[in-house]
Amino acid sequence: MAATIGVGLIGTGYMGKCHALAWGGVRAVFGEGPRPVLAHLAEVNADLAARKADEFGFARATGDWREVIADPAVDVVSITTPNAFHAEMAIAALEAGKHVWCEKPMAVALADAERMAVAAKASGRVAILGYNYIQNPLIRQIGTLLAEDAIGQVNHVRLEMDEDFMADPEALFYWKSEASSGYGALDDFGVHPLSLVQVLFGPVTRVMAQLSKPYADRPTREGTRREVETFDVASILFEMGAGINGVMALSRSAWGRKGRIALQIFGSRGSIVFDQERFNELQLYLAGEAASTQGFRTILAGPQHAPYDRFIPAPGHGLGFNELKTIECHELLRAIGGAQDARVIDFATGLGIERTVHAMARSHHEERWVAV
Amino acid sequence: MAATIGVGLIGTGYMGKCHALAWGGVRAVFGEGPRPVLAHLAEVNADLAARKADEFGFARATGDWREVIADPAVDVVSITTPNAFHAEMAIAALEAGKHVWCEKPMAVALADAERMAVAAKASGRVAILGYNYIQNPLIRQIGTLLAEDAIGQVNHVRLEMDEDFMADPEALFYWKSEASSGYGALDDFGVHPLSLVQVLFGPVTRVMAQLSKPYADRPTREGTRREVETFDVASILFEMGAGINGVMALSRSAWGRKGRIALQIFGSRGSIVFDQERFNELQLYLAGEAASTQGFRTILAGPQHAPYDRFIPAPGHGLGFNELKTIECHELLRAIGGAQDARVIDFATGLGIERTVHAMARSHHEERWVAV
Amino acid sequence: MAATIGVGLIGTGYMGKCHALAWGGVRAVFGEGPRPVLAHLAEVNADLAARKADEFGFARATGDWREVIADPAVDVVSITTPNAFHAEMAIAALEAGKHVWCEKPMAVALADAERMAVAAKASGRVAILGYNYIQNPLIRQIGTLLAEDAIGQVNHVRLEMDEDFMADPEALFYWKSEASSGYGALDDFGVHPLSLVQVLFGPVTRVMAQLSKPYADRPTREGTRREVETFDVASILFEMGAGINGVMALSRSAWGRKGRIALQIFGSRGSIVFDQERFNELQLYLAGEAASTQGFRTILAGPQHAPYDRFIPAPGHGLGFNELKTIECHELLRAIGGAQDARVIDFATGLGIERTVHAMARSHHEERWVAV
Amino acid sequence: MAATIGVGLIGTGYMGKCHALAWGGVRAVFGEGPRPVLAHLAEVNADLAARKADEFGFARATGDWREVIADPAVDVVSITTPNAFHAEMAIAALEAGKHVWCEKPMAVALADAERMAVAAKASGRVAILGYNYIQNPLIRQIGTLLAEDAIGQVNHVRLEMDEDFMADPEALFYWKSEASSGYGALDDFGVHPLSLVQVLFGPVTRVMAQLSKPYADRPTREGTRREVETFDVASILFEMGAGINGVMALSRSAWGRKGRIALQIFGSRGSIVFDQERFNELQLYLAGEAASTQGFRTILAGPQHAPYDRFIPAPGHGLGFNELKTIECHELLRAIGGAQDARVIDFATGLGIERTVHAMARSHHEERWVAV
Repeated sequence: MAATIGVGLIGTGYMGKCHALAWGGVRAVFGEGPRPVLAHLAEVNADLAARKADEFGFARATGDWREVIADPAVDVVSITTPNAFHAEMAIAALEAGKHVWCEKPMAVALADAERMAVAAKASGRVAILGYNYIQNPLIRQIGTLLAEDAIGQVNHVRLEMDEDFMADPEALFYWKSEASSGYGALDDFGVHPLSLVQVLFGPVTRVMAQLSKPYADRPTREGTRREVETFDVASILFEMGAGINGVMALSRSAWGRKGRIALQIFGSRGSIVFDQERFNELQLYLAGEAASTQGFRTILAGPQHAPYDRFIPAPGHGLGFNELKTIECHELLRAIGGAQDARVIDFATGLGIERTVHAMARSHHEERWVAV
Repeated sequence: MAATIGVGLIGTGYMGKCHALAWGGVRAVFGEGPRPVLAHLAEVNADLAARKADEFGFARATGDWREVIADPAVDVVSITTPNAFHAEMAIAALEAGKHVWCEKPMAVALADAERMAVAAKASGRVAILGYNYIQNPLIRQIGTLLAEDAIGQVNHVRLEMDEDFMADPEALFYWKSEASSGYGALDDFGVHPLSLVQVLFGPVTRVMAQLSKPYADRPTREGTRREVETFDVASILFEMGAGINGVMALSRSAWGRKGRIALQIFGSRGSIVFDQERFNELQLYLAGEAASTQGFRTILAGPQHAPYDRFIPAPGHGLGFNELKTIECHELLRAIGGAQDARVIDFATGLGIERTVHAMARSHHEERWVAV
Repeated sequence: MAATIGVGLIGTGYMGKCHALAWGGVRAVFGEGPRPVLAHLAEVNADLAARKADEFGFARATGDWREVIADPAVDVVSITTPNAFHAEMAIAALEAGKHVWCEKPMAVALADAERMAVAAKASGRVAILGYNYIQNPLIRQIGTLLAEDAIGQVNHVRLEMDEDFMADPEALFYWKSEASSGYGALDDFGVHPLSLVQVLFGPVTRVMAQLSKPYADRPTREGTRREVETFDVASILFEMGAGINGVMALSRSAWGRKGRIALQIFGSRGSIVFDQERFNELQLYLAGEAASTQGFRTILAGPQHAPYDRFIPAPGHGLGFNELKTIECHELLRAIGGAQDARVIDFATGLGIERTVHAMARSHHEERWVAV
Repeated sequence: MAATIGVGLIGTGYMGKCHALAWGGVRAVFGEGPRPVLAHLAEVNADLAARKADEFGFARATGDWREVIADPAVDVVSITTPNAFHAEMAIAALEAGKHVWCEKPMAVALADAERMAVAAKASGRVAILGYNYIQNPLIRQIGTLLAEDAIGQVNHVRLEMDEDFMADPEALFYWKSEASSGYGALDDFGVHPLSLVQVLFGPVTRVMAQLSKPYADRPTREGTRREVETFDVASILFEMGAGINGVMALSRSAWGRKGRIALQIFGSRGSIVFDQERFNELQLYLAGEAASTQGFRTILAGPQHAPYDRFIPAPGHGLGFNELKTIECHELLRAIGGAQDARVIDFATGLGIERTVHAMARSHHEERWVAV
């Protein structure tokens, strides 16, 4: 029988459920690693916690997240609460000797993210961030293509991330329009494409951003209008090492875009194009083909793109968004097990992403290029 | 706490694992219904069974499938063994008072399928087939559009199902090329598009098929060549009730197609187009639009397409193939719970699909239209 | 200075204008061959003829088409009148010693088509049909790929042709719903995909069709309803030589389809996919690619696909539908000049296409396979 | 009979031929306006000029472009020579009282472009630039949608223009890599998307660009390597009036892109997406649709999108790149005829585009936002 690992979960919303599903399925999918034991779940009150523990199959429930962290049956804590709580919870968990799986972004304030990175380092525990898009087998395939020099020396990259949940100008003002939530699309979205940049190319070195507000104000429940404080659109020029530059554009107000994270990579011998809205597909152009039959090929995800094979043995059948989290969970377990090559963004690397975002915001306000 | 239901699983390959994942996740996803208890798992030998039980989280394991059926802790049995075993196992399980979830197709011989249907009826238990493609929220959405008369009276339908796992003429002869496995693409694939036809339009009434062999023979391990006995390609004309006719084309030797199930539905006020290789998308054309802006719209699956919302609250993020099985599992549980509107293909309905397939084969050999 | 060729044009509607543009541009595009002199144009009355001659740049105009044929300044006659007039005009022109460029289909009645073929043979003149889709540089590229054995031995082909100009059930009854116009989609549309089949694979040998009427009757201007006599939908199984079989589906009532002619070709080493609605693109899948990067490649038309280069030296800029006619005109001029390899469908070959269509209609009425 | 207009053509390369085809076809297509008389053609020497006059159907030919301008039979002069010659030729033609149709961009040096605009104004003649992409019926449709407020207040725009003719790092150094040719992608390409911005939104007000060189040097014919002086890649942030901002990315070294000009427009009630590689298609998302059927609709160009109907009466058949030039020619003729609403970019407006490009270059070198 497999060894076990005790799991604590704080938060049971969108991402909390996603973590729960990942913990519940990871061993059946991968057939290896410790068996997760769903030990303890926390929500904002005991009733909700009890209901969710029943649904998700957790043994215990509590309205006080500190009980999860104090529980000796818990080895690793999933933190899926609003961003403002990440720092306190993650640091407490690390200090209690737990491994931590915290949703992105690390924190609203850069100082909090820095404290988290310090705590992670001091703890000796595994502390990673929930950047699940990097777990897509086809994003791994892009990494492999780059490593194999399939498209030669990359010179230019374009990234877009767009959704439309804030596109309606008459949608009510809510916390995402408050300055206390952060800059807007920049930190809400930007960290995702930056996580892809990080795993594919490494850190960003210099940035120049322009932030904008599609709508100056929004209606409130009280029938008045309130000024919008965050920027739903961000446009960024950036540079990485090795002569690579890029463009990044983000919008939370892009009607019709539902989960778009578009990536275009141009190299000296080919190009790669990807769109998260069709994340089981990859476009690849190789320069060496015969002239009359050259073209972007549409590669469908299949078992040749590990670890797709762990989910489905047949090609072209499609993974789901939630399954990226299961892969992430497996990588976390590998990291906990001591693997040096686990594909995760730990708190130290995540801090670099946060710093990049903050540099972008500064470049906007100072209207100049800013080094990260 | 939720009630429980004891689960037995026979077979742990491609579909067996898919069932195991569905049983493991269904309650966390839907937050309702009984909690599945993974009770007993059977494989061809005890060792493999034990290993898979450990991976999938089943309590007991056996090399004798009859032990699963005999186990009083088992309420429902998943049968995911090769098609030739379905009839014996399903009938035994039903006779033992278990509910049955059997992978498609029912059986190779029509007589076996008929016996299964009889057994199901006699048992009073729920007996359904694993036609998971019908569970796609967007296939449901097509059904809703048809029910709402969104595209008017349907007059013509086209279906295609193509993969390429037998496209290589030099791939070794194996059991799928033996006549004992069935007709070929017709029963291997045809039942899937027919399951979509069934839930969207009802039964097929008349058929005219042409079967063909792309490759007359294939190499064997012994270095000889053996004549291919099954038909990897099938082309079919068919009629349904209410003046609807259609075309169906199937190939297991269609290079580049990995999981294509393409559907085109033409009505008096619009058209619907779907392709399983992009199964989180649906194309809809409505006749009433302004001339200058008319066009097929690409609808991305989202929480407005139940039960997508049970998996992910955000639109455009994409479900995976395995998650269709989880939906199917939930519908099975609803049927077991007594729901009259559970979206499942039971043995009686499944038998109609099998009869359609056999009528197609006869129409090919007799070179004439055959009534189903 | 180039030699000249005198052009007569009968009919100035959709295709008449298309011919006029082709004659006007062909020499500037190709920079070779005789210079067309736009000599004489006929329409149903002298006034319309005079107006169109002025617009199209023809020297003379007449309300009597026989004057065009009698004009010694005319060497070649474009016939773009309704199908019912083709036979009389084409035969008269051939007997007058003119070359003939007649729009498809040849005639409504097979006997008329046969007389046309006889007249063409007897005349010793060049007599071709306006099957312009075969002139697409990417259709030529498909032919080259097949000739080079790029996708190996073809085993299965699928064709679709769909438009929606008759999709509205409340559109007024007009001549295309009268039996005198022919069978319906079968001859109106079917000849186009058959022309592609002809140039890519050669003749069809055996057919099995099903024709249907989406709408039993249609409103008339008088406020009554009149029974529809033609079949707007056709579904066909067919066989060619060399073990190739196929499916063809046609609809004039396919909402949302505007100019779709879809082609799928499956071979032992690859597949080819094409859609006329994106006729500057071609999809090609080659079996030999590395597993992790295999996929259909989207080939954009470019100067490497002759004679695209005669129109535009840069790739990816796109030819238009009308320009296919200019290519056809150039091939006609080459045939007139004595080239043996001109890519045209002459009356003899066109007759084979007509016979195929009539065999399809017979197979529908007799509900059996019919040899062509 | 129609009035005539005498046409002179200087240059017979890519764009020269394109002009010749447009002049040759414009009256047959539109059936209105003066009849172009192809009067006089100039090339670099008399022999080439004579050959091209014969091919294109021009009455006279010369090796001295000044003879075209001096010819009293010439009313309008097409200038399609390398950019460095535009200013001298256009100014001479205007001073000779001719209308001018000059290919973009106006000139390499801003001072030359300014002189051209002054000359145009002083002449009282029509002087326009060859920005043919703005003539696409679907670009007009976008303009109509914006004018009709279909997508509400626009807040963010993205443009990309990419080709791959300089993507090969081992392609020989040629004049486009010399500083004397301009900045690189910025002026070579950037003017095209800026022409779209101009007709859809009006002038750009502020810019921030980053230019880069994918390859530091290139091989020469002599076997040495020469440093590249121009920037094949450009990334730009920009602002327009009315709170609209945007991103623009350009590359001449984008493998696989052949004629991409991608446009994304985001408004308060919808979005519009366009790609020149599929320029007979337009994507439109309207916010008000029912939730379950919302999606980008793919609009195929058809006769409802004037002046597509002048070319083809049937929808979905596709215009070609060259035909955009025919539309441009018609608009030029309308402008010459006194129409105030001719859709052209005259020298005054074109100068604004040139100034924008030069401001972008300055912003790159000074690493700051620059007002246009």
